Amino acid sequence: MDSILYLSSRFLFFSHICSKKRMYSYSYLFSFTQKVFETIGLSEQEAWQATDILMRAELRNISTHGLVRLPEYIRLWQSKRITTTPEFKIVHESPSTALVDGGKGLGLVTAPKAMNLAIEKAKIAGTGWVAARNSYHFGIAGYYAMKALEHDMIGICMTNANPLVAPTFAMQGMLGTNPIAVAIPAGEEPPFVADFATSPISRGKVDVYEDQGQSVPEGLLQDKDGLPATDSSILRKGGTLRTLGGDVTHGGHKGFCLTAIVDILSAVLPGANFGPTVVPTLSYVKDKTGAKDNGIGHFFGAMRIDAFQTTDEFKMGMDHWIRTFRNASPVEGEDHVIIPGDPERESEAEKMVNGIELSRKSFEGLVKVAEKLGVDFDISGFSKE
Amino acid sequence: MDSILYLSSRFLFFSHICSKKRMYSYSYLFSFTQKVFETIGLSEQEAWQATDILMRAELRNISTHGLVRLPEYIRLWQSKRITTTPEFKIVHESPSTALVDGGKGLGLVTAPKAMNLAIEKAKIAGTGWVAARNSYHFGIAGYYAMKALEHDMIGICMTNANPLVAPTFAMQGMLGTNPIAVAIPAGEEPPFVADFATSPISRGKVDVYEDQGQSVPEGLLQDKDGLPATDSSILRKGGTLRTLGGDVTHGGHKGFCLTAIVDILSAVLPGANFGPTVVPTLSYVKDKTGAKDNGIGHFFGAMRIDAFQTTDEFKMGMDHWIRTFRNASPVEGEDHVIIPGDPERESEAEKMVNGIELSRKSFEGLVKVAEKLGVDFDISGFSKE
Repeated sequence: MDSILYLSSRFLFFSHICSKKRMYSYSYLFSFTQKVFETIGLSEQEAWQATDILMRAELRNISTHGLVRLPEYIRLWQSKRITTTPEFKIVHESPSTALVDGGKGLGLVTAPKAMNLAIEKAKIAGTGWVAARNSYHFGIAGYYAMKALEHDMIGICMTNANPLVAPTFAMQGMLGTNPIAVAIPAGEEPPFVADFATSPISRGKVDVYEDQGQSVPEGLLQDKDGLPATDSSILRKGGTLRTLGGDVTHGGHKGFCLTAIVDILSAVLPGANFGPTVVPTLSYVKDKTGAKDNGIGHFFGAMRIDAFQTTDEFKMGMDHWIRTFRNASPVEGEDHVIIPGDPERESEAEKMVNGIELSRKSFEGLVKVAEKLGVDFDISGFSKE
Repeated sequence: MDSILYLSSRFLFFSHICSKKRMYSYSYLFSFTQKVFETIGLSEQEAWQATDILMRAELRNISTHGLVRLPEYIRLWQSKRITTTPEFKIVHESPSTALVDGGKGLGLVTAPKAMNLAIEKAKIAGTGWVAARNSYHFGIAGYYAMKALEHDMIGICMTNANPLVAPTFAMQGMLGTNPIAVAIPAGEEPPFVADFATSPISRGKVDVYEDQGQSVPEGLLQDKDGLPATDSSILRKGGTLRTLGGDVTHGGHKGFCLTAIVDILSAVLPGANFGPTVVPTLSYVKDKTGAKDNGIGHFFGAMRIDAFQTTDEFKMGMDHWIRTFRNASPVEGEDHVIIPGDPERESEAEKMVNGIELSRKSFEGLVKVAEKLGVDFDISGFSKE
């Protein structure tokens, strides 16, 4: 009898949430997420920091790197792959560089410290470069690159990741979708912020196609035999992503070079696990490596503008650059050339006012995390502030 | 009568060279080219340096950036766009950075000095970063990146160029083919050397299709109205190259980001002419800018390995990386995954022994340059040492 009651209450619960738009205010989701991080043992400040990174992804409409990742982080913590009380160590340094060890903390905890160190180095040496090992998924690379902007610096960030991308001519996934972010300050114009997976499509976007039951456009995926594929569940079937450019005729070997460079700077340089030796954090990627787990790695850079030319002159130059490209003649059917960072900034402003709509997957993940950790989560959405 | 004799002698001359394989030894072409540079006023050391860069391109089978560019350099000198006695100036510096002004010298003169400065900075500060303005075409970016290898450093080099690439959604060419080169030392394995135009195809390779009367594969070019094109002479007709990735579905906006980042670091940062404001050095690209000519710009980096981890550990890591990728399972029909730099290194070894075959365009260019400057050039090829 109890179980029938339970089941019908679950049914009512799911009917209820399915009819909702799953809208939440920024501040409600922020408080909830910070509480989740505090519950698993992060300090108040670290929990705030980790939350700020995920919420920034939500605001910037890069929700594939936002709250949807929370269950993955909790799983890593439960399985003791990560610790919430890591020791962050500077292993080695020079005036403009450092190698840091994240001590198996969340990337969301290690990466902000590493980027801050790069900025501090740059204040004195002109530029600062920090490679990090023993870290994990750190959210959006753009968050760290943008940290440099408030210091009138150019910020750079990259990371390696689960091996899902097949190098040119290779059968299997050996490289991550290894993003690069570069943030460059401007004057009157908003900053230039490029933040992109070096594969033509990110894993998160393939997941979105899969969730929506759609196939992926041609040229982006290959199956486990290296043949072209469009099945959006192919990554769970031993398939892989192709490199940016696709085949050699269309420059796919350049995409391979780019992803490889990110892998080497992020992982070989600090001594993290590189390419196919990354111990997967995705349940559907098998660990075939048997490798010692030194986590994934990141690479951060900060370059003081006035270590090259005066900040004012540079900012005028960037305003000129941005306006020149924004005002270029568009091809038929398009409004204008998009300056990297513009759509994300517009999204931030909009969502701060109108709230954030969670995907079904995000929402369900948060409900489960809340249940598991005993943190309150109001499934009725908006109105809450 | 004289003119008939002249014409028939020219006919015999051209019949003669057309039947030749245009083979030359490395050392013959080196001496000839060095003499050309000395004739227009470079010092012996600078002429040697400039020649070494072009000859390295020939050896590495990147002949689109080798001796075929000599007539273009001579034209720039004759039209007084460049000087052969430039003043190389350090405009501003910090422990790990410098802004240099090439004083309108050849890129082949300015760039080696700038890269050396980056290496000297790295010796003390851990890394060195130099942005250069008032420079011109500098040959292969890989040459400068590889300079770092002998110091156990990672070398980085990029440059902007004539505006031939249309940003995503843009009608016109606004960015160069803006190459990136990254050279990374290994231990027992040869180094990793990536050197690639950030467009899916370089301008030089489109020229090769045109010289051979072939069309270019689909997806790489667009015509002056922004529509897809395969005509290999399209660049002379207001057409453009597309970005790496092609359309947005295939990640072309990421290619735009990449090319834009190179343009900003190479040109806006040092105060050279950026994107569409580059005063063209190609006869078929019209100067619509009316901009002050601060040349094109370059960006150089050198990172000491032991500013991060011990050189031995890193080199072992790189050997592991290289072997892991080289030994990966290839897709059907391919031998193995190609490590960036392998084909070029093999070509160097082969051409040092067997000589260099000039393309008809290169050969005719050298014949004309020789005539114009009164430098001996043996049109009968090989045998000469």
